[in-house]
Amino acid sequence: MNTIHIEASKPYDVIIGKDLDMGQLLESAVSPCRTVLVSDSNVPLKYRQKVVRSIRNCGFDVCTMVIPAGEESKNMETLEGLLEYMADCGLTRTDCVIALGGGVVGDLTGFAAGCYLRGIKYVQMPTTLLAAVDSSVGGKTAIDLMAGKNLAGLFYQPEVVLCDVSFLDSLPEDVFACGLAEAIKTGVLSGHELFDRFSRPDIKENIAEIISLCVRYKGDVVQRDEFETGERKLLNLGHTIGHAIEKLSGYEIAHGQAVAMGMAMMARSAEAMGDAPEGMAETIEKVLTANGLPTDCEYSAGQLAQFALNDKKRTGDEITIVIPAAIGECTLKKLPVSELKDYISAGISK
Amino acid sequence: MNTIHIEASKPYDVIIGKDLDMGQLLESAVSPCRTVLVSDSNVPLKYRQKVVRSIRNCGFDVCTMVIPAGEESKNMETLEGLLEYMADCGLTRTDCVIALGGGVVGDLTGFAAGCYLRGIKYVQMPTTLLAAVDSSVGGKTAIDLMAGKNLAGLFYQPEVVLCDVSFLDSLPEDVFACGLAEAIKTGVLSGHELFDRFSRPDIKENIAEIISLCVRYKGDVVQRDEFETGERKLLNLGHTIGHAIEKLSGYEIAHGQAVAMGMAMMARSAEAMGDAPEGMAETIEKVLTANGLPTDCEYSAGQLAQFALNDKKRTGDEITIVIPAAIGECTLKKLPVSELKDYISAGISK
Repeated sequence: MNTIHIEASKPYDVIIGKDLDMGQLLESAVSPCRTVLVSDSNVPLKYRQKVVRSIRNCGFDVCTMVIPAGEESKNMETLEGLLEYMADCGLTRTDCVIALGGGVVGDLTGFAAGCYLRGIKYVQMPTTLLAAVDSSVGGKTAIDLMAGKNLAGLFYQPEVVLCDVSFLDSLPEDVFACGLAEAIKTGVLSGHELFDRFSRPDIKENIAEIISLCVRYKGDVVQRDEFETGERKLLNLGHTIGHAIEKLSGYEIAHGQAVAMGMAMMARSAEAMGDAPEGMAETIEKVLTANGLPTDCEYSAGQLAQFALNDKKRTGDEITIVIPAAIGECTLKKLPVSELKDYISAGISK
Repeated sequence: MNTIHIEASKPYDVIIGKDLDMGQLLESAVSPCRTVLVSDSNVPLKYRQKVVRSIRNCGFDVCTMVIPAGEESKNMETLEGLLEYMADCGLTRTDCVIALGGGVVGDLTGFAAGCYLRGIKYVQMPTTLLAAVDSSVGGKTAIDLMAGKNLAGLFYQPEVVLCDVSFLDSLPEDVFACGLAEAIKTGVLSGHELFDRFSRPDIKENIAEIISLCVRYKGDVVQRDEFETGERKLLNLGHTIGHAIEKLSGYEIAHGQAVAMGMAMMARSAEAMGDAPEGMAETIEKVLTANGLPTDCEYSAGQLAQFALNDKKRTGDEITIVIPAAIGECTLKKLPVSELKDYISAGISK
């Protein structure tokens, strides 16, 4: 069992291990109280039952809510339904909510916790690799608007993140790959120690260690820049184009796949524009492909630029993009919005 | 012109005066940027035009949105519409929103600002007495849920509060009285200097000074307890019963009137239960009545207790009520939820 401490505005632990005793670990972080446990229709019933039984045994009073799986649930309507349910269950300021699921469940539940009664406690229990390596840590919560992804939300840290890797056993290959995309992104950012693991055949055997490396790197960045005024923007590598791809596909293309595409395309663009050394794009593409991830998309630079400019990463007339200058050395670059299309274009037409 | 500085987690000024130069004052607090100005259908067109003209002259790019007046607008649907509109107007992280209106506009706009792109700037320009003396200051933002009032929201402080008292000139008498209810509440809390003013005939002539006294008192409390872990709960005097009355009436009874009823009833209860000295209820009732405010309601103690227990003020199996022990000396009392009904009952059957 690995414990990684995150010293954010509200400090908390991320606990990673196999067959965790969820009830006991939860009780160490949150006094027994009334709780709503939110999961989605992809979370196997046996996992939900196991968690509910374990935390009930430790004195928690549990109501459960299951939302439809998929990005379509990450909207204002589901948020409203969850908030009303929390009120119906009688949650008060000293109670908490638990997100047992992937990124959508975590983002939505965290947002609900952050605004219910102007803020109550919440706990993340990721059940997908993507949530484990990325979205459950760092306190970014959100829902999508019609206008774009994650446009409404909060920075709101959980009380504890409990990551039981045995929940990852039943993930379909494409969902697992989706999580690998964010893990590989973290490898590109953090350096060869992590990045090189994705060229090896023993990823699944060592998944707890890989998750720990990802969380430790992200935690360090979040500690230094919780509210994304600078360094934390690096974590958006592949996301400027990635979010545009998700939106353009009507969320048919999953987040991880879109990030993989975005990361590869940005690497090619950076190389073509002289911002990254020759061979950088190939290095990244090779690892993505080896892990069943795509490296290109069907959309035009014009389409991608238009949707990317509705993204949060824009400030006034500039947009900040993340450049993979080397493995373990990414940099931020401000582009005038008028130049984004050409920059993206350089990564498509190779 | 009075400037009151509030040293909250984000410090800001509340500026109170007649015929303020909104553009210039705004520019001193926020660099010219793109902005959405939100107001409601009760705000006279001439006020809106005056503000828009003034801030455009100072270099702000302004989109406007008008929501239907009334508590019914303070819901998730209006919030969603506002967030989508902000995205459509192209607001980015360096832009801001402005609330020109009463409590509903301020609460809703502040909430939208707090979650749009995980938080952008906002400015309060109160146009009702209630917003001026109470809701525009202190950073409490919220919407109502079906389950109850203000159940979802944020603590989120504005950049500046610009209160032009000339906007109060056209308020209907009952709306003005509504604001007086919160001002009188502040008088009960803060002491005779403010409380005694409401027995005098020159309230309107001295409204800027009364607002300043209210804001100064509230600002001091907010500075000491921004997130309402203790002392700030005092500001809820009259609100436990008041919110229940609003909810029971389907929001037909306005917030100020409900607070007046709640305050008078709580004073009678406290007196009957030995928590307040004899004559306390009469002192408060006299001032409320003199200012056109009600002191009783048609609902039963059972109905009121039931709705009050869905309120935020409950934690676990206790509810905190505010007792007017003397003018300038209110206290918090924790009641087991099972005793609330009897406590309220003592204030009804006099």
